[in-house]
Amino acid sequence: MRTINVGLIGAGFMGKAHSLAYAAMPMFFWPAPAVPHRKIICDVTEEAAAEGAQRYGFDESTADWKRVVEHPDVEVVDIATPNHMHAEIARAAAAAGKHIICEKPLARTAEEARTMYEAVRDAGVVHMVAFNYRRTPAVALAKRYIDEGAIGELISFRGTYLQDWSADPESPLSAGGADQLGTGRSAGDAPRGPVDVDDEMITMLRFSNGAIGSLEATRNGHGRNNFLTFELHGTEGSIVFNYERRDELQVCFASDGADRKGFRTVYTGAPHPYGEALWPIPALGIGYGETKIIECHDLFQAIVGQEAVSPDFGDGYQIARISDAILESSATESWVSVPPLETTPGRG
Amino acid sequence: MRTINVGLIGAGFMGKAHSLAYAAMPMFFWPAPAVPHRKIICDVTEEAAAEGAQRYGFDESTADWKRVVEHPDVEVVDIATPNHMHAEIARAAAAAGKHIICEKPLARTAEEARTMYEAVRDAGVVHMVAFNYRRTPAVALAKRYIDEGAIGELISFRGTYLQDWSADPESPLSAGGADQLGTGRSAGDAPRGPVDVDDEMITMLRFSNGAIGSLEATRNGHGRNNFLTFELHGTEGSIVFNYERRDELQVCFASDGADRKGFRTVYTGAPHPYGEALWPIPALGIGYGETKIIECHDLFQAIVGQEAVSPDFGDGYQIARISDAILESSATESWVSVPPLETTPGRG
Amino acid sequence: MRTINVGLIGAGFMGKAHSLAYAAMPMFFWPAPAVPHRKIICDVTEEAAAEGAQRYGFDESTADWKRVVEHPDVEVVDIATPNHMHAEIARAAAAAGKHIICEKPLARTAEEARTMYEAVRDAGVVHMVAFNYRRTPAVALAKRYIDEGAIGELISFRGTYLQDWSADPESPLSAGGADQLGTGRSAGDAPRGPVDVDDEMITMLRFSNGAIGSLEATRNGHGRNNFLTFELHGTEGSIVFNYERRDELQVCFASDGADRKGFRTVYTGAPHPYGEALWPIPALGIGYGETKIIECHDLFQAIVGQEAVSPDFGDGYQIARISDAILESSATESWVSVPPLETTPGRG
Amino acid sequence: MRTINVGLIGAGFMGKAHSLAYAAMPMFFWPAPAVPHRKIICDVTEEAAAEGAQRYGFDESTADWKRVVEHPDVEVVDIATPNHMHAEIARAAAAAGKHIICEKPLARTAEEARTMYEAVRDAGVVHMVAFNYRRTPAVALAKRYIDEGAIGELISFRGTYLQDWSADPESPLSAGGADQLGTGRSAGDAPRGPVDVDDEMITMLRFSNGAIGSLEATRNGHGRNNFLTFELHGTEGSIVFNYERRDELQVCFASDGADRKGFRTVYTGAPHPYGEALWPIPALGIGYGETKIIECHDLFQAIVGQEAVSPDFGDGYQIARISDAILESSATESWVSVPPLETTPGRG
Repeated sequence: MRTINVGLIGAGFMGKAHSLAYAAMPMFFWPAPAVPHRKIICDVTEEAAAEGAQRYGFDESTADWKRVVEHPDVEVVDIATPNHMHAEIARAAAAAGKHIICEKPLARTAEEARTMYEAVRDAGVVHMVAFNYRRTPAVALAKRYIDEGAIGELISFRGTYLQDWSADPESPLSAGGADQLGTGRSAGDAPRGPVDVDDEMITMLRFSNGAIGSLEATRNGHGRNNFLTFELHGTEGSIVFNYERRDELQVCFASDGADRKGFRTVYTGAPHPYGEALWPIPALGIGYGETKIIECHDLFQAIVGQEAVSPDFGDGYQIARISDAILESSATESWVSVPPLETTPGRG
Repeated sequence: MRTINVGLIGAGFMGKAHSLAYAAMPMFFWPAPAVPHRKIICDVTEEAAAEGAQRYGFDESTADWKRVVEHPDVEVVDIATPNHMHAEIARAAAAAGKHIICEKPLARTAEEARTMYEAVRDAGVVHMVAFNYRRTPAVALAKRYIDEGAIGELISFRGTYLQDWSADPESPLSAGGADQLGTGRSAGDAPRGPVDVDDEMITMLRFSNGAIGSLEATRNGHGRNNFLTFELHGTEGSIVFNYERRDELQVCFASDGADRKGFRTVYTGAPHPYGEALWPIPALGIGYGETKIIECHDLFQAIVGQEAVSPDFGDGYQIARISDAILESSATESWVSVPPLETTPGRG
Repeated sequence: MRTINVGLIGAGFMGKAHSLAYAAMPMFFWPAPAVPHRKIICDVTEEAAAEGAQRYGFDESTADWKRVVEHPDVEVVDIATPNHMHAEIARAAAAAGKHIICEKPLARTAEEARTMYEAVRDAGVVHMVAFNYRRTPAVALAKRYIDEGAIGELISFRGTYLQDWSADPESPLSAGGADQLGTGRSAGDAPRGPVDVDDEMITMLRFSNGAIGSLEATRNGHGRNNFLTFELHGTEGSIVFNYERRDELQVCFASDGADRKGFRTVYTGAPHPYGEALWPIPALGIGYGETKIIECHDLFQAIVGQEAVSPDFGDGYQIARISDAILESSATESWVSVPPLETTPGRG
Repeated sequence: MRTINVGLIGAGFMGKAHSLAYAAMPMFFWPAPAVPHRKIICDVTEEAAAEGAQRYGFDESTADWKRVVEHPDVEVVDIATPNHMHAEIARAAAAAGKHIICEKPLARTAEEARTMYEAVRDAGVVHMVAFNYRRTPAVALAKRYIDEGAIGELISFRGTYLQDWSADPESPLSAGGADQLGTGRSAGDAPRGPVDVDDEMITMLRFSNGAIGSLEATRNGHGRNNFLTFELHGTEGSIVFNYERRDELQVCFASDGADRKGFRTVYTGAPHPYGEALWPIPALGIGYGETKIIECHDLFQAIVGQEAVSPDFGDGYQIARISDAILESSATESWVSVPPLETTPGRG
């Protein structure tokens, strides 16, 4: 079984989650596509990086991210830095021929994302954006239902992301220190910078197949924690998901008899996506860590050439275009069209 | 205790609900403001009206709504007809000096609503629009919390009305027959006309205090029954309501200790609005009927002069203006402003 | 359509609920089996009875229950008194040839219940015990599923009744006054007698088919309101009900595909028991009143000879035997057997 | 920071969970009490053990558990074998002076548990039973509330463990192979032995403080997955927990105002037990793995002498006595008393 060396840039909260995935992936997925080896970790100071190496089990540490990108033994570069550094690092890693996994969002603008996508496309490396919530088994099950046509043609979508933190968006790599994001501190002692992200947004959506929808997000919803939900209506059924109860998928099939119709609460486990690999006993339950472990598996499967990975930088680029369109729509108070995008998947 | 005669126009489903309220209101609210007497009922044919009288306990019946409006013993005219007849009947009833309760929506357009509002205002009668969902104790409790400042300044509102019927909108008075709406028939035998109402809508909202929000409604959501919900975020807390679980109000107070904060599920009963009058035992539970019984009480309270009634035709007029604005916004793909409206409350 | 006169004994909370049912039953069930007429009402004082007559719409009133039982125009005697008076009144009503509906529990002991059952059996009248919770559409749907074999052979049952009131058990007829039970008063001003009922109980069950189960009840469960639940496991599925969410029935079918199996939340409406009669629009929702309206319908159906009524005094007697057995089991710390009982249904 | 070598006996499902904990514990708890090193793993064949070593990251492997117990570099022996082997291994490990963590249940009988407890007590080693569900943050929060007196004196307890698997209880070490428990296979191809565990049980409880309660468990409850619940009523409040929604604790405080009282759904995160160490962002969510990571932390804290560990073999012994008493109670159909037990905590 092949061992593949990883270089991780960013020892903050996301660095922790990714390190867990590298250590645990083969425990869950066996035989593993390959065994990740934690080679080198980077953070803003030598001290923070060294502490990260000890804590997360990396061989080496550095405060210079270029050392990671240029490291001859590193095959995969993992970008877990603040958003504004994604593009430069990703382009350098692609130029060095490294496979890349980059935390979400891929970039701050579509233009920035485009340069990243083109760099990995031209380099012919595997590229992935870490939209790990898609790896939640219940979300993957929803996708399976849709692909099977179990709820018919989609006619509407509504997504919400409601939370109640007004956290300092200053990132770990800027402030330094392992597992730091500032949000875990409930007391008022966390150092804060000015809040420069929008705290609340709503937008309406029209899809090319005629479906309609909406997106809403806020950080001001007292009592909402990670209320990341979607509700899908199709001509033959409905699907509802809420990450706060991420082990459950609600699905209603129109074909059920009139006196037996209602939302089914499907509790994900062995019969569902990734279920055999995870916990082979009903309802032991999935946490955030498992979504990262699955993501890691899918990445390494692509690296060893078994399957193309999704979502890749092409997807990340398209999502950046949608984000830009939402901002433009808000500024111009008008509908903005986002045409389809033809992209080349990462090698796989 | 005064007895007040009611004339009901429309023996369909809504006629049933209102008749229940007239019979039951003094049983619940005692001493009652007045005792409603079911004097005369009108439906499209003499036969349908006569059957309605027997079934719902009215003294007389007619197929001519003008006989109700002009009936010398009738003090209150109850308009439970299809929407397109509301205006003509209401104006005639006002001209005859009758108090009026009219089913929702008040009118098909703001212009139509305006004529109705001006008629009742000039006549000096009591006027009410039957927005009975507001009488759900949990909804009244939400209002109480807001008025007390318990959740601070409101910063966002999202409302949904998701259902899964694609019912024939043809109404009982057109087709005739008591308790007919067509929707209760799950088989395909209900006579249907063309569906001429919008089946799905989404709109965004901005409020004058700076809060934002959205409204979504559909009749195509498999598995959603009467999923009439709202979620309110305030600076000091949040409130969530879902009519499908109408006995419960979810409320989160920001002031709760960090380790004890979360949505409280307040199950409405004696300590909550209307609770002493309804069922004096915890969690016997409220159905649709009770919301109509409460509505009836509030109407009669206004008629005997104890308290102004809300919502009245002024409110119904303003809501019609908002509906018109939503349609205009959709047609013009732009924001439409709805200025405040100064109206005179019904006598009370 | 036949009109049937009713005499109601007890103008308290239960009297209110029954009066509502008499007024509303034909509004919902049409054509009605017969139209109930509220003839005479009895309470502890002439004043309370007279107030009850006005409030609940009865022609006459009295403070002497024997006048109700002997009233020549009364066909149905409705016993809504405190428990200790049930037996004497029921035997007298049977002797007078009246049909009887008696509030639950039928009697204080099995021996007392036996005298009541034998009296109605010998008199040949219709007899019913007002276990109205069974009329909740979701509960009736559970019964239908079981009868259809939809969940296979029953293997276990667990029932709970958790509440948080420690109410004064003194009854309305003793203290007098309409709609009085004392429980609606959240403040400390309600007059109270000594609490002489058990506040908490647990028992284990074995059924003749080999199934096992348990029953638990308390009045001391803070946050539980009317948490009247059951969970049934069968060889082919499970059913879960909670009165606090009485519009919903949870059912899981073993035959569902492995990746689509889960509890369905069936929201009761038109396609379910009593649904066509109640509210012909999805999810308007059932309150306590509707369960009494359905009960009234089933009683009158039996009186006009259309169908035998259930539960009757034979059922009430058997339940009293089970209650006695639970007490004996607790006292002797041993299992107590309750043999089957052959009873004659009320005429129907 | 000290590194402590672990020897793991049993490479099945539990071996996977424990291996994850050894790898991940310092990533979450930092500075860690000590860093676990995966030294040697044992399974029934050399091949299975070697595969386990590669998969779970152990240096060495063996098919002879005595080699683990006698390994000079091993400080902690982790017993994750089938239940019938716990006692012999634990006594040998204690005799060799190793600290021990043993999977639940500690032993098959109280007598067997007693020998294990006495062995570790006499050896003076740290001993722990792997009741990891107690480490669920919401369960730890319930304990904190109780200890703070937040729900007053406890008056009742009801626990359920409802599942729907009728899995082959044959264990991995008997059949061999990593991560094997047989339960993850939904098809009929898993090899099965006779089911020799009870499939359903109910018992009643009386506590020394006067509280009462019940316990119910089944593997036959279709639709129940890992429905491990408890409901606690106290004089000042109630607590409800369900592992299927393990991130949430339901708590009701009697002291809340009458119009604001209800169960609060506290979603565990940073402000709750272990929250700072786990995921410092609201509602990322806890899976089974995190409960094992916390357990590992508490064990190593005890080993380095920072704090006594709980639950230890004394607790496991007492629980075995309670299990024996339940069986005796069932056989004799009578109450059985379980006196308190004075035990010595593991070193810490």
